Amino acid sequence: MSGTLYGLGLGPGDPELLTLKAYRILQSAPVIAWPAPDTGPSFARTIAASHLPGGQVEIPIVMPMRTERFPARDVYDRVSVEIAAHLDAGRDVAVLCEGDPFFYGSFMYLFERLAPRYRTEVVPGVSSMMAAASAAGRPLAARNDGLSVLPGPLCDDELTNRINLADAVAIIKIGRHFKRLRALIEKMNLLAQAVYVERVTLGAERLMPLADVPEDTAPYFSMILIYKGGEDWVHSLPGSKA
Amino acid sequence: MSGTLYGLGLGPGDPELLTLKAYRILQSAPVIAWPAPDTGPSFARTIAASHLPGGQVEIPIVMPMRTERFPARDVYDRVSVEIAAHLDAGRDVAVLCEGDPFFYGSFMYLFERLAPRYRTEVVPGVSSMMAAASAAGRPLAARNDGLSVLPGPLCDDELTNRINLADAVAIIKIGRHFKRLRALIEKMNLLAQAVYVERVTLGAERLMPLADVPEDTAPYFSMILIYKGGEDWVHSLPGSKA
Repeated sequence: MSGTLYGLGLGPGDPELLTLKAYRILQSAPVIAWPAPDTGPSFARTIAASHLPGGQVEIPIVMPMRTERFPARDVYDRVSVEIAAHLDAGRDVAVLCEGDPFFYGSFMYLFERLAPRYRTEVVPGVSSMMAAASAAGRPLAARNDGLSVLPGPLCDDELTNRINLADAVAIIKIGRHFKRLRALIEKMNLLAQAVYVERVTLGAERLMPLADVPEDTAPYFSMILIYKGGEDWVHSLPGSKA
Repeated sequence: MSGTLYGLGLGPGDPELLTLKAYRILQSAPVIAWPAPDTGPSFARTIAASHLPGGQVEIPIVMPMRTERFPARDVYDRVSVEIAAHLDAGRDVAVLCEGDPFFYGSFMYLFERLAPRYRTEVVPGVSSMMAAASAAGRPLAARNDGLSVLPGPLCDDELTNRINLADAVAIIKIGRHFKRLRALIEKMNLLAQAVYVERVTLGAERLMPLADVPEDTAPYFSMILIYKGGEDWVHSLPGSKA
């Protein structure tokens, strides 16, 4: 009998924000796979580290960070073959995923290659978006608010139209788009209603009004929350310079 | 020293989808409070049941379901006084929340009354939206998709404009709006791209193409996911009649 492929949501970073289910599977899976950039450690592997019993087979999914998209396809093809061999031999394989596997997660690339052939289970996790709202101390959306989740690489026109129609906004995948995004939000007169959150739930967490961020770039694990009508509150955030 | 108020995200329903942190706090909090309708049991209390050590003080937050909004305010005022007395006496109080406390959660009503005066911590949880995508076996949003979360009570014009601008949509708070929402989605030619999910992660979970739902109403714990461009896939869902 073939093994089961798990897409394991590990939550936003704090190892205590793993689910009991993810914990159980981490403790028992004989094989784990985890994404890592070719420039540094795996964030997913770091979240899981204290929960691993030791002795598992580990499959790094190393992504080239400085090249075009196509090599990523080769990496997923190659890793899928490696994972399939373990599944064929009856061994369960848990793929470690930051946050939630199906909320902008890279697990989808392994899922589309392997789920048609193997029993697959996706274990949802706490998203960094929810954790960011908890850290900010303000509901992200309530009552009949419409919430828009928007990736930073979208162009200014697309972002403007969608932000205009939403009551609350979470902008993800900021990175090198940070400067442009902040300028756009300022142009839309929403700067005073925007919160910047970086590395949420980790020791290095930073949270402050977007207007007060001194840098012109942001790391991958960061997010902008726009609370329309929330000026008064954003100015009173602990990280505020106001 | 005063106790700490916890807003405890318990996840979508499966007791194993609690976080390790929520589990730890459930095990140690001397006082728990939980919302319940005046017509039946508390869903949040049910999720937590198997994790409670027993012997806690319990504060039901009983909401009248058949009347106007104003009595809710009285209930939160009254419960806040009761919770404050425990916090003043140095006892931690954990408020049990389905899903995530700050994602359309009613915890905000206690938070706004008590957080200004007491140490408060919000523990994020797995949202039913993430669990629904996991159950459907399809990423809710990927790459540069924009995702809109829309409450069902919004009027047709507002829904239409926002759905038009989004790549993926989750409609929540469906309940008595189900028939109108399905008609709207059909009118927008999106019926074949919509999935209905009810009581996700529970034994009574139902998941099927929206087009195949026989009823004209839906329970509170249900959701519609619209995957634009996902016709082929939606028709192949296990619950499909196609």
